Amino acid sequence: MRFNIFSKHMSKIKPSLPKGTRDFGPTELRKRQYIFNTIKSVFEKYGFQPIETPVMENLSTLEGKYGEEGDKLLFRILNSGDNLSEIQNSKNEIQTNKELIQKVSEKGLRYDLTIPFARYVVMHQNDIAFPFKRYQIQPVWRADRPQKGRYREFYQCDADVVGSDSLLNEVELVLIYAEVFEQLGIDVTIQFNNRKILAGFAEVLSITDKLTAFTVILDKLDKIGKEKVAEEFAAIGISAKANEVLEYASGKNNEEQIEFLKSFLSESDIGLKGIEEIEYLLKLSASSKLNITLARGLDYYTGTIFEVKANNVQMGSIGGGGRYDNLTGVFGLQGVSGVGISFGIERIYDVMEELGLFNQLNVEVATTKVMFVNFGGVNELTAFNYVQQIRTENIAAEIYPANVKMDKQMKYANAKKIPFVAFVGDEEISSHTVKLKNMATGEQQNLGINEAMVLLKKV
Amino acid sequence: MRFNIFSKHMSKIKPSLPKGTRDFGPTELRKRQYIFNTIKSVFEKYGFQPIETPVMENLSTLEGKYGEEGDKLLFRILNSGDNLSEIQNSKNEIQTNKELIQKVSEKGLRYDLTIPFARYVVMHQNDIAFPFKRYQIQPVWRADRPQKGRYREFYQCDADVVGSDSLLNEVELVLIYAEVFEQLGIDVTIQFNNRKILAGFAEVLSITDKLTAFTVILDKLDKIGKEKVAEEFAAIGISAKANEVLEYASGKNNEEQIEFLKSFLSESDIGLKGIEEIEYLLKLSASSKLNITLARGLDYYTGTIFEVKANNVQMGSIGGGGRYDNLTGVFGLQGVSGVGISFGIERIYDVMEELGLFNQLNVEVATTKVMFVNFGGVNELTAFNYVQQIRTENIAAEIYPANVKMDKQMKYANAKKIPFVAFVGDEEISSHTVKLKNMATGEQQNLGINEAMVLLKKV
Repeated sequence: MRFNIFSKHMSKIKPSLPKGTRDFGPTELRKRQYIFNTIKSVFEKYGFQPIETPVMENLSTLEGKYGEEGDKLLFRILNSGDNLSEIQNSKNEIQTNKELIQKVSEKGLRYDLTIPFARYVVMHQNDIAFPFKRYQIQPVWRADRPQKGRYREFYQCDADVVGSDSLLNEVELVLIYAEVFEQLGIDVTIQFNNRKILAGFAEVLSITDKLTAFTVILDKLDKIGKEKVAEEFAAIGISAKANEVLEYASGKNNEEQIEFLKSFLSESDIGLKGIEEIEYLLKLSASSKLNITLARGLDYYTGTIFEVKANNVQMGSIGGGGRYDNLTGVFGLQGVSGVGISFGIERIYDVMEELGLFNQLNVEVATTKVMFVNFGGVNELTAFNYVQQIRTENIAAEIYPANVKMDKQMKYANAKKIPFVAFVGDEEISSHTVKLKNMATGEQQNLGINEAMVLLKKV
Repeated sequence: MRFNIFSKHMSKIKPSLPKGTRDFGPTELRKRQYIFNTIKSVFEKYGFQPIETPVMENLSTLEGKYGEEGDKLLFRILNSGDNLSEIQNSKNEIQTNKELIQKVSEKGLRYDLTIPFARYVVMHQNDIAFPFKRYQIQPVWRADRPQKGRYREFYQCDADVVGSDSLLNEVELVLIYAEVFEQLGIDVTIQFNNRKILAGFAEVLSITDKLTAFTVILDKLDKIGKEKVAEEFAAIGISAKANEVLEYASGKNNEEQIEFLKSFLSESDIGLKGIEEIEYLLKLSASSKLNITLARGLDYYTGTIFEVKANNVQMGSIGGGGRYDNLTGVFGLQGVSGVGISFGIERIYDVMEELGLFNQLNVEVATTKVMFVNFGGVNELTAFNYVQQIRTENIAAEIYPANVKMDKQMKYANAKKIPFVAFVGDEEISSHTVKLKNMATGEQQNLGINEAMVLLKKV
């Protein structure tokens, strides 16, 4: 492969990034990796295993799965080859933009991790040991209008258990949420509810035909408040009895809510089943908070639903999920029940920045522990040998690559936040020492290389 | 965001992957991550820092950088919006497929990591502490014809130092190669040469006008052999004196080659400079092997060039790189010299599989250390509490989520290669123990939970 990137005849262009996309430099990347690694290590402690799927999926896999709006937001990849002839030869068939797309594109960028996961399960069903506990942390793409905190390329982070309808899975997912956010230092409320409770409400209110509308309105409770929700209920003919539920939107503890449910849903079988599930979950994961008005994503969740919010921060939910009955049905594999959670890692990053948690947790943005100043000649060689010796001990070390002005070398060490700088001048050579400077305190000391390594190992 | 992936009315499609792309399941992914993590840890020990760039780049950044062939292999992303109207309104301007592409596409998928890195350096030049030692491990995309070992989506892994022309950088890159491959257990030969040597040959042979042709032919030496190369030299009028160089293609040690160079290039200033650089490199990194017929990628390399081959395996190079003078010139930033290396991670994976190195290195494909069998009821609760206790010690543990047939539970543990299975039956409950079964030896023992944890910590 030959490149001509060095050609002098090319027009010079001022480079830019596609809108809604980002570069991650070392500092930001380390903080992101800190979040990813924390989540991964908890996932693995609970027996979840990683998978990765390709960035590109066939449009036949993606289209029609995210609603009409979602289809519009897919990034589509132009077919290789002569698309112009393709268009010209089938001019009469191409009347709409959609028909054009069908002619020139058959692949798209992953829109979420759920559909690729469903495809994965179906394609690899014979190799998978069910229940399959998988996690996946990869970027996804949406042709949304970019705005503060919303990107066209962003990461998602999902964990799911498929092929098991045991509530133990729900319990463990709550525990995972609790442990991850505790490790990250974010004070959160893990709210949950159960789709069967909402179905029970609908039964009791005799509005099973309006279940979706009911939950869509309920879902707005946080934004528009009790009064407006009650108005909207009334507008579509839901009885005022429904408003009793709204009284439990906040301020009531788990026991009070369960007491209410037991009386309100006493005539609904599905409602009572929901209560049973809630009580099981609470018994084994006391850290979760019941919220019987929580309604998220109702059109595919069938059991428990989760939502995580950071306390004391203005920010939407930073996690969510729930149980579903038929993830893989769309690809022809029926009856695979599952339950999953997501971490909103882009928002988690923002929360941690806002709360100064990266500092509090001492998230290391520098890896190099010591930089040797380069004085050239024999000093350079001696310093280089020390650096190699230090690396043997698995301590990250550098030597500035050239004998340039001290200023420049120190500036480099400062910019990289390297905690120690070492000098090997003529005196140090004759005394077989290195002068080690602590960049935070300014303190300097002459040490033998072995002593120096002992000190650096502790950094 | 509402999905309708659970709709029962959708047509069922048999899912598939775009050709040339792959899913990575847990086992394969862990092996890949083992390679990535080994390389990363060595990079960081040498002071390199990670960056990540977006999957999508503007076509203005990508096009024209990889030659005409490369432009054809770019994956292009269709613009959002109404491309049909766009095409219809500018029908007269669109005569060729290229013009069509210009109308409907302005973004593409990353083709390599070099151009995005150059763009990154130019865009962030004011925030970077030069010399900038960066590494990057990310996928790239090429619309190549897929074949064995060649994918359309594959990972690249690069480390570069830009903004320094010190040869210490070359030395450290050789040491990185040596250390990574030693850690991976792959016996390699790290060959190098210097572009100034080749320029010196051209001077001595009075063919400086034919330097590119000369090196293109030389590059084929491995494939077509000495005789054919000599024929091709003769065919374009290169004197037979050039064939003396070919005698050093193999079997000569570093000293013999240097001796030859010193005599052959005695009249060439650039050649003598090349010898000086080679001697410096050899002094500080004895593990590298000079090969004065090595010619790779000459049209942009200007100094040292590297190539790594696995010994005793039939496989192309698994690493390569070199020094270049003007990486960022194409984006308007002149005079940024640098040197870099790549690891061919897809091939490294294949080599390690072929040599059985993942087994030899005990690359752990399982993370869970123990699975508790689920007997339901109070046994389930007791087992679950043990599992939580074990996790507190940062030991990965699972409980099978439901009380199903023992067979099924054991099959799950086997499939996940979990080394220990624990039983909490009625006897264990009354004796406050767990029965721990070593899945490799079949040995069983009853232990208190604390003893069990001590044992599991050592797994």
